[in-house]
Amino acid sequence: LEPPFSHTPNHSLSYWCVLFQGVGGGWIEAQNSRGEVGLVPEDYIELPGGGGNVGHVAAPVAAHAPDLSFFDAFAAPASNGKDPWSVWNQDTTGGSSNNWAAQPEGTITGTITGKSAAPDPWGSTAQSHPQAYQGPGAEDDEWDDEWDDVKSNSESGDGGAIQRGGATGSSMKISLNKFPGFSKSGPELFLLCKQPPKGKEKITIYMGEVGPVWSYPEAQLDCVVADPKKGTKMYGLKSYIEYHVIPNTTNRPVNHRYKHFDWLYERLLDKFGSAIPIPSLPDKQVTGRFEEEFIKMRMERLQGWMTRMCRHPVVSNSDVFQLFLTYKDEKDWKTGKRKAEKDEDVGVMIFSSIEPEAPDLDPIEVEQKCDQFSRFTKAMDDGVKDLLTVGQEHWKRCTGPLPKEYQRIGKAFQNLSSVFTSSGYQGEATLTDAMTSAGKTYEEIAQMVAEQPRKDLHFLMENNNEYKGLLGCFPDTIGVHKAAIEKVKEGDRLVAASKITPQDKVTMAKRVSTMSYALQAEMNHFHSNRIYDYNRVMQLYLEEQVKFYETIAEKLKQAHSQFTTM
Amino acid sequence: LEPPFSHTPNHSLSYWCVLFQGVGGGWIEAQNSRGEVGLVPEDYIELPGGGGNVGHVAAPVAAHAPDLSFFDAFAAPASNGKDPWSVWNQDTTGGSSNNWAAQPEGTITGTITGKSAAPDPWGSTAQSHPQAYQGPGAEDDEWDDEWDDVKSNSESGDGGAIQRGGATGSSMKISLNKFPGFSKSGPELFLLCKQPPKGKEKITIYMGEVGPVWSYPEAQLDCVVADPKKGTKMYGLKSYIEYHVIPNTTNRPVNHRYKHFDWLYERLLDKFGSAIPIPSLPDKQVTGRFEEEFIKMRMERLQGWMTRMCRHPVVSNSDVFQLFLTYKDEKDWKTGKRKAEKDEDVGVMIFSSIEPEAPDLDPIEVEQKCDQFSRFTKAMDDGVKDLLTVGQEHWKRCTGPLPKEYQRIGKAFQNLSSVFTSSGYQGEATLTDAMTSAGKTYEEIAQMVAEQPRKDLHFLMENNNEYKGLLGCFPDTIGVHKAAIEKVKEGDRLVAASKITPQDKVTMAKRVSTMSYALQAEMNHFHSNRIYDYNRVMQLYLEEQVKFYETIAEKLKQAHSQFTTM
Repeated sequence: LEPPFSHTPNHSLSYWCVLFQGVGGGWIEAQNSRGEVGLVPEDYIELPGGGGNVGHVAAPVAAHAPDLSFFDAFAAPASNGKDPWSVWNQDTTGGSSNNWAAQPEGTITGTITGKSAAPDPWGSTAQSHPQAYQGPGAEDDEWDDEWDDVKSNSESGDGGAIQRGGATGSSMKISLNKFPGFSKSGPELFLLCKQPPKGKEKITIYMGEVGPVWSYPEAQLDCVVADPKKGTKMYGLKSYIEYHVIPNTTNRPVNHRYKHFDWLYERLLDKFGSAIPIPSLPDKQVTGRFEEEFIKMRMERLQGWMTRMCRHPVVSNSDVFQLFLTYKDEKDWKTGKRKAEKDEDVGVMIFSSIEPEAPDLDPIEVEQKCDQFSRFTKAMDDGVKDLLTVGQEHWKRCTGPLPKEYQRIGKAFQNLSSVFTSSGYQGEATLTDAMTSAGKTYEEIAQMVAEQPRKDLHFLMENNNEYKGLLGCFPDTIGVHKAAIEKVKEGDRLVAASKITPQDKVTMAKRVSTMSYALQAEMNHFHSNRIYDYNRVMQLYLEEQVKFYETIAEKLKQAHSQFTTM
Repeated sequence: LEPPFSHTPNHSLSYWCVLFQGVGGGWIEAQNSRGEVGLVPEDYIELPGGGGNVGHVAAPVAAHAPDLSFFDAFAAPASNGKDPWSVWNQDTTGGSSNNWAAQPEGTITGTITGKSAAPDPWGSTAQSHPQAYQGPGAEDDEWDDEWDDVKSNSESGDGGAIQRGGATGSSMKISLNKFPGFSKSGPELFLLCKQPPKGKEKITIYMGEVGPVWSYPEAQLDCVVADPKKGTKMYGLKSYIEYHVIPNTTNRPVNHRYKHFDWLYERLLDKFGSAIPIPSLPDKQVTGRFEEEFIKMRMERLQGWMTRMCRHPVVSNSDVFQLFLTYKDEKDWKTGKRKAEKDEDVGVMIFSSIEPEAPDLDPIEVEQKCDQFSRFTKAMDDGVKDLLTVGQEHWKRCTGPLPKEYQRIGKAFQNLSSVFTSSGYQGEATLTDAMTSAGKTYEEIAQMVAEQPRKDLHFLMENNNEYKGLLGCFPDTIGVHKAAIEKVKEGDRLVAASKITPQDKVTMAKRVSTMSYALQAEMNHFHSNRIYDYNRVMQLYLEEQVKFYETIAEKLKQAHSQFTTM
């Protein structure tokens, strides 16, 4: 057996044995080296240059890779441990004991990492949050398990994702794309490509006040995700939720289901993932008693995700994103969809579209910048997770023991008041009315305390949760750069070993400079958004906190006014 | 061996054997039926009519009791269980499962109960309160263990209390008085006394708007307990704290030590305890690292006790209380002290001084009133204890986990702020300054939360603690009345058995009416004080709570103003 996915670091997929070819719909049943059985798309196992012939023994798919062993050399450092940060960040991380160690082994690509390493949106104890992710293995969402339905299969082999429980019950997700040689840990594809593809969209980087910046549009794209509606298909056997997505450019709503968002996500990830961290979508969830709550929560998070994508000048300007927001009819959508799925300008090749309007950078400066961003994102990731943990505990207290205590105080006052009422003493009423009222006030405060987190802490948590997801993509985005830097560093050795030409070495240095500009532009985009987001969410949080404490003070003032010392 | 104290319900003191007569200073070493050894005053063990002869075998001290077996008959119902309320309140209490079951067996007299049954001033979990009672068995307070010192002994046989660790290590306290026949459960002493003692002070009861009321003075007596000063004696071997007590009548401070307050307490208990619940003093405590805190706390509680005594028209008008507040010099004090200790108008005989200016009550009405007060005080005792428990838990949360959480939130904000500072991005300062400031605000809030209970909950707790102590005296005060009612009910049987004459029976009915007026006047006094106290303490509590929440809102408003979404 050959190792067809040896260029991907996902060990569980290293060896595949085709078990059954006749599954239909473009799928093949296969078994990996761990004995796990699953479906893989037919075209994924095509031999290089093959035209649809599927062999019983799967061959390497890394057909377009200039040098397979070369790829392995690049892939190695990125898959050598459980902590993707530790590869280039050993000076700042605490080794395997840090949070990143919790990521699944071998999941290196940014988005797979993002999706599978964050089963808990608010840290490991998030289950108690009423809106928190309801546990892993919830792939069978009745609205979303349609990747294998008739309609989807007829559209295949699309570049979707396989989501299947294997024989061991574990699920796996293979990120596919039409450029099979692509690997995020293989930037040499761009560094060494013979000439940039022609007729590309150009992505310009300017020198702004803060350094390299993307080219921002004059009017910022925005959209609203709203009006979730339940639909059914297959004679009511399957139901799903469809959302309106209304861009501010057309003001015309288009309909999308979660699986469309997921499709868009996959496209964006394939296309921009090497240069731009594409945060994963809100997790799929099991449905249950909290359908309303769940739909609201998912919509809120899809809105957050779309807002972030709209705000990104490169992403929002892309054909696939525009298609998603402004398709005219079903036919338009399907045509655009097919076109997007055939886009070969994905993976590290995105850098070939990028044109920095600035002089080439020195490799030392490139490395410094890369290290700086790496340190920063790692530190921020820690800080964000810390805040999430603290917020999580505060949420628990505010919705658990604290309101219970205020309620008991309220009850104790009312209880004493009713004892006093039984005294038979004249002129008791003023005190007992006041004490009952004070007691009720504390019961109201209990209620307020319990409800407050949804009004303020919720948004602080959601914001930080979003940033946790975004930061979780950086190890991979930065990893591409780090790998490129290492490649350039090896330039002399590679020339000496005749792996590359001296001209290749010069080209690589120039191209790594372009990559660095892209990283800097992205970091500056990140920083500016971060500053905006944290200002906004802190304002909102503190505003609601002020209201909360002022309301309590006002209520207590009223309770106070009823007591009288004659 | 004769049972010298059989008329008292304290089993542990039933039998005494004089061990050693030559202790000196008016004391005799004796051993009780449990083998516990302690000192008892010489004159306490005098035989009836004896002139200082002490026998090796102690004889009954109940010399003045008209009929010992008769006394036993009365004593029985009050000592038949662990729950003093259950005797006359079985309809409202839940049997032995209620709080009162926790009282030490056999401690029946109100003040002994008050002192020994309340080792925890704020309920059973009060230890964690920084100012809470620091555990039982703390009798050896270096400032207060002077009942047996040279000076005290030279003043003996005073009517102080013996506080000694017995052979078993347990301590006991004997309430002594100069009227050895006195027992709170023996109201027949008053009901059947031949003629009221002459030349008494009269205590008048009027019919007020709310029913029977004591005669209140025009100007209410008040005093300030202040300026605790450390004094030493015995060449510095012993130190003690002396307080200034300044009555509003003279504005002249007199000096008193804790033991003087304790002496006053004993006098008031002996003299008024059958008619008026005399709350016990703040407990003796071990001293330790918190001397300052302890002195402040004791002073505050002595102040509370004195204020309550000053407010009582009967207590505050008494010679002994006036002596305590206004003695001119040491000689005056000693003279007055000796006189007070020789006062024979104590125990149930206080009722003979009481003159209700209203028609005699029907025994049925007497019983109804008694039951009503009993139910009320029991219910209030439950309510107060409930509030103390709740308050105790709230105190713990406010000084423990809650501020820690706010501190962690504050740290998380500041931590994230310092990460942001490291971004190297321009224009970061406004956000990071604002986030640092918000973080510090939450640390300030943490501090405020931790300190707040001392500003508001403390007074609510102290007030309820005071009421808990006061309510703990009611079972005994009401018990005297209940016993008297039972006595009157037995009137016919006693006449038939020739235990009393028919005239005695008539007299008893009249006198039990007087007792009922006293109880009603006292309950009305209690109610009026209770309404004042609870209004006042709730006002104070809510006022401080309002300030607290307003301050937090104000701080957060300031923190909020530093954020800006440009």
